[in-house]
Amino acid sequence: MEVTEIKLEDLDPLAFIDEKVNEISSIVGENVAINAMSGGVDSSTVTMLAHRALGENLKTYFIDTGLMREGEPKKVVSIFRKLGVSIEIVDAQDDFFTNLKGITDPEEKRNVITNVFYKNVFGRIVKEQNAHFLFHGTNYTDVEETVAGIKRQHNILEQLGIDSEKEYGYKVLEPLVRLRKTGVRMVAQALELPEEVYNRMPFPGPALAARVIGEVTPEKVNIVRKATKIVEDELHGSGAFQYLAILHEDKVTGMKNNERAFGNQIEVRCWESKDAVIGTPTRLPYDTLERIVDTITSEIPTVVSVTYNITKKPPSTIEAI
Amino acid sequence: MEVTEIKLEDLDPLAFIDEKVNEISSIVGENVAINAMSGGVDSSTVTMLAHRALGENLKTYFIDTGLMREGEPKKVVSIFRKLGVSIEIVDAQDDFFTNLKGITDPEEKRNVITNVFYKNVFGRIVKEQNAHFLFHGTNYTDVEETVAGIKRQHNILEQLGIDSEKEYGYKVLEPLVRLRKTGVRMVAQALELPEEVYNRMPFPGPALAARVIGEVTPEKVNIVRKATKIVEDELHGSGAFQYLAILHEDKVTGMKNNERAFGNQIEVRCWESKDAVIGTPTRLPYDTLERIVDTITSEIPTVVSVTYNITKKPPSTIEAI
Repeated sequence: MEVTEIKLEDLDPLAFIDEKVNEISSIVGENVAINAMSGGVDSSTVTMLAHRALGENLKTYFIDTGLMREGEPKKVVSIFRKLGVSIEIVDAQDDFFTNLKGITDPEEKRNVITNVFYKNVFGRIVKEQNAHFLFHGTNYTDVEETVAGIKRQHNILEQLGIDSEKEYGYKVLEPLVRLRKTGVRMVAQALELPEEVYNRMPFPGPALAARVIGEVTPEKVNIVRKATKIVEDELHGSGAFQYLAILHEDKVTGMKNNERAFGNQIEVRCWESKDAVIGTPTRLPYDTLERIVDTITSEIPTVVSVTYNITKKPPSTIEAI
Repeated sequence: MEVTEIKLEDLDPLAFIDEKVNEISSIVGENVAINAMSGGVDSSTVTMLAHRALGENLKTYFIDTGLMREGEPKKVVSIFRKLGVSIEIVDAQDDFFTNLKGITDPEEKRNVITNVFYKNVFGRIVKEQNAHFLFHGTNYTDVEETVAGIKRQHNILEQLGIDSEKEYGYKVLEPLVRLRKTGVRMVAQALELPEEVYNRMPFPGPALAARVIGEVTPEKVNIVRKATKIVEDELHGSGAFQYLAILHEDKVTGMKNNERAFGNQIEVRCWESKDAVIGTPTRLPYDTLERIVDTITSEIPTVVSVTYNITKKPPSTIEAI
């Protein structure tokens, strides 16, 4: 089935919400549906739509992949508790890291994450809950980029010819698949989600694994997690579309305590963009960049070098992997 | 023998020249001496000192390692022809690339380059010429950094316990070993070398091999050579101390012609420094950086991403390797 986009000018958020809530109710009926919540605006919006449609028959899970940012699982649970939606955190760190061992190719990495997520973790949950439906936050740009072969988005199955019912034992529901990010944000706001959710900075499906070049290990994720927090703390309030830190696999020569230190390099990116389709690096003041570098190199001992990405998208992409 | 520094305030360039010319004459006598010329300010200064002392008994060679910048060998020869010094170009590209095959560790790379340079290439030349002396442009900072273990400078032998007479069959003469770069530039100017020589931007001994992360191959050197030319053309006249391009081994995701392109990343560095002991990234205007990126990504098809290094030395070093 070909998916068509609902353009912003044709989007009436309240009508969209009514339509989707009815659609979900009629498809799921009295069954139990499972919802994978990442904390992003897409999956938060899906959570609220499905919660309105299904109430207690919706079981929402936040998978702690070990690849999330600092404090992220707890924060997401606390935001939704205030909205009357309870979320269960599932610790699947071992499962992800074990399966990521030795994988260096970016598409393979994304593939492993998709499989662990949908097959191992949700395959098990769906079976335990005797559910037949799983909600995805897939949006129109995800579909487009995956089909175009730019990047395999972890939440794309049908468009890649994967039959989830056959492969994983459940049917996937994607209520946002016809909207781009801006449309999703409008729906999120109309659903009365808090501003920190509907204006939340985009974060990739493979999470911090998308920001580690080469093999993904707990040690490397830990480094990029620290760098991410430093970059986010510094650039929060910059008004930029998205900002991030990447841990390179390449090592470079540096000096610490007057001695040679062959260490890590962190790459910082900060984007001006409307919808992630095209983007321009933010012209950050050098004072800001220097503060970021000083904090990263002093708080993360193995890092001897920090760069700032100055390439537009295209030919770059927003994330490195 | 411990080397002591001649500080700038104690340096009288003309007296230094007289002293060194006499010293060289008395050591070499009527013998033939070989001079390794890289085109840098250090080896250019040595060339003029030794030329004054020895005249036709000095044989100067420029080794085309395959690792030099675009047009570099010819340019150096032409500058010195005007000064009455003839330089022979020796094509040793195969020798270098064969020996660099499979080597990824930076110190090993530097070690291979040292060995091919001094043992294979100059060992042969010295023997052919029946010479007993080889001139080096070693300066005080080279010694210091090598001894401190920061970076193995390719022209350091004695300080690392390498007996060149035993290892390579000749004695090494280092007339500049007590000066830092600024002192060398003063001596170069007093020797009436042209401004493009005495104010020449520093360039590393291992040449473009110092700017390729991972294994050094002709293809990779070719990419970094193109990027170097673009950066040098754009930043020439910026007044910066040193500017350079580095080819990463890490690949990143990009897009070219609307398709996924998993391609190369180039890192640009531009330094404010007096003597390379400490350094600060130049606060280049974003317009300049964008021009560099546009030229690199359009003229070098495999490059999808360009970064600018924003780290001070320390904890960074000037070069990546």
